[in-house]
Amino acid sequence: MISVVILGAGNVATHLFNAFDKSDKITVAQWYNRNIGSLKPYKNKVDITDDLSNLKEADIYIIAVSDDAIARLSSKLPFENRLVVHTSGTVNIHDLDKKNRRGVFYPLQTFSKAAPIKFRNVPMCIEALDKTDFKTLKSLAKAIGSKSHKINTNQRKTLHLAAVFVNNFTNQLYRVAHEITEAQGVEFDILKPLILETAKKVQDLSPYMAQTGPAKRNDKKTIEKHLELLDNEQHKAIYKLLTASIQETHGASTNSATDSQKKIK
Amino acid sequence: MISVVILGAGNVATHLFNAFDKSDKITVAQWYNRNIGSLKPYKNKVDITDDLSNLKEADIYIIAVSDDAIARLSSKLPFENRLVVHTSGTVNIHDLDKKNRRGVFYPLQTFSKAAPIKFRNVPMCIEALDKTDFKTLKSLAKAIGSKSHKINTNQRKTLHLAAVFVNNFTNQLYRVAHEITEAQGVEFDILKPLILETAKKVQDLSPYMAQTGPAKRNDKKTIEKHLELLDNEQHKAIYKLLTASIQETHGASTNSATDSQKKIK
Repeated sequence: MISVVILGAGNVATHLFNAFDKSDKITVAQWYNRNIGSLKPYKNKVDITDDLSNLKEADIYIIAVSDDAIARLSSKLPFENRLVVHTSGTVNIHDLDKKNRRGVFYPLQTFSKAAPIKFRNVPMCIEALDKTDFKTLKSLAKAIGSKSHKINTNQRKTLHLAAVFVNNFTNQLYRVAHEITEAQGVEFDILKPLILETAKKVQDLSPYMAQTGPAKRNDKKTIEKHLELLDNEQHKAIYKLLTASIQETHGASTNSATDSQKKIK
Repeated sequence: MISVVILGAGNVATHLFNAFDKSDKITVAQWYNRNIGSLKPYKNKVDITDDLSNLKEADIYIIAVSDDAIARLSSKLPFENRLVVHTSGTVNIHDLDKKNRRGVFYPLQTFSKAAPIKFRNVPMCIEALDKTDFKTLKSLAKAIGSKSHKINTNQRKTLHLAAVFVNNFTNQLYRVAHEITEAQGVEFDILKPLILETAKKVQDLSPYMAQTGPAKRNDKKTIEKHLELLDNEQHKAIYKLLTASIQETHGASTNSATDSQKKIK
């Protein structure tokens, strides 16, 4: 049985609590938040507190607060030599106060308050300064069904950056498509199966191999027509830049020699 | 029973043939291609031909060739007053030769040669100049399990443009993420669950509501760190432009009044 104390009450903290609570291999010894009001709905399920001096003993302390608050909270912990981890994609493992054993338990997934999350679909990026601690974090990931990956701080920062591209920026392209269709009285819903298929396609195929469309074909006529259709300057700029990026990746013409050189894997 | 003749042998033509062939409500009377070699593998399943003067009678002639070739092929058909449709997202219905009854049967989905496609996940955008023809095309869509939508030429062009954003451009963001991760020796595979979840999220939630991340939060520190991490100028430009676009959508600060004004639906 692994005992944990959760610190923080945001999306990640809450989803982790729900997953831990369901697992028969994990016990949540306590849940801390500066503002105890956020934890009140859970008071019959777990010991809640807003007092750091009152923290119980546990195998792992999970700091799931905003990036800026991690270092300060870790320094305020009233104990030493225990395993303390944060859940951030960008914060250095060494930003945690060195009076404790340090680690990172970063779930690489998008969390929303409302939607339940299946942790078997959440890759867990794990880092620890100590081998035994690393194993403990791996067991914790396994106990909620997550696949764990050994990822150091630099790699984690790279993953966080890449995640912004495939999550936030991709979602903004969906938003632009929503604006374009609504402006012409067309239902955005018609695009939803395509959105899903595009994401499914790269589960088995590299993005390089999955690419199609006017930019890759260098179909100038269609590209021009599309630019004429766009009346928003920012949308036009996005269209031009991503078209140029596709052509940079695939070569302006369908030169297969260049293509294979630029191919990853 | 609906009888069809397919003209062309590309991805769309081939996927349509396979779907028609499986349906007990559709018979493929003939499959035409200029180069009969591409059709040879199907010669035991369907009557194949490379001779337009030899075309059989059918309820619907489906021209599934490249955009540039549609008008010319339609003008070369040696008959009149039959229902002839194309499958393009960008070609005007009036580009089909007016000697025949005209329509459009545009599947809004990404097709690849290798991957099989489930037509229940393919919205069919239908246009016809005649009411009875529209109904025939609707029945054809239904017979392969597709949901059909009445979409005129302008709306179809808008959808095609929006599809480039959610499909080609999104896929290019996946590609950029692939380049970023591989350069740091991190496995792109770790991002795949996030890619899928991002697409799933907007099946129920608007892209506006689904957005998260540093750009939306106007988290300048993280944005700066990300830009420092990027060494490719084009990747930097994409990061800046899409960050600006997210901030344009959500307001540079988290001003909820502005937010709700800009919200679609």
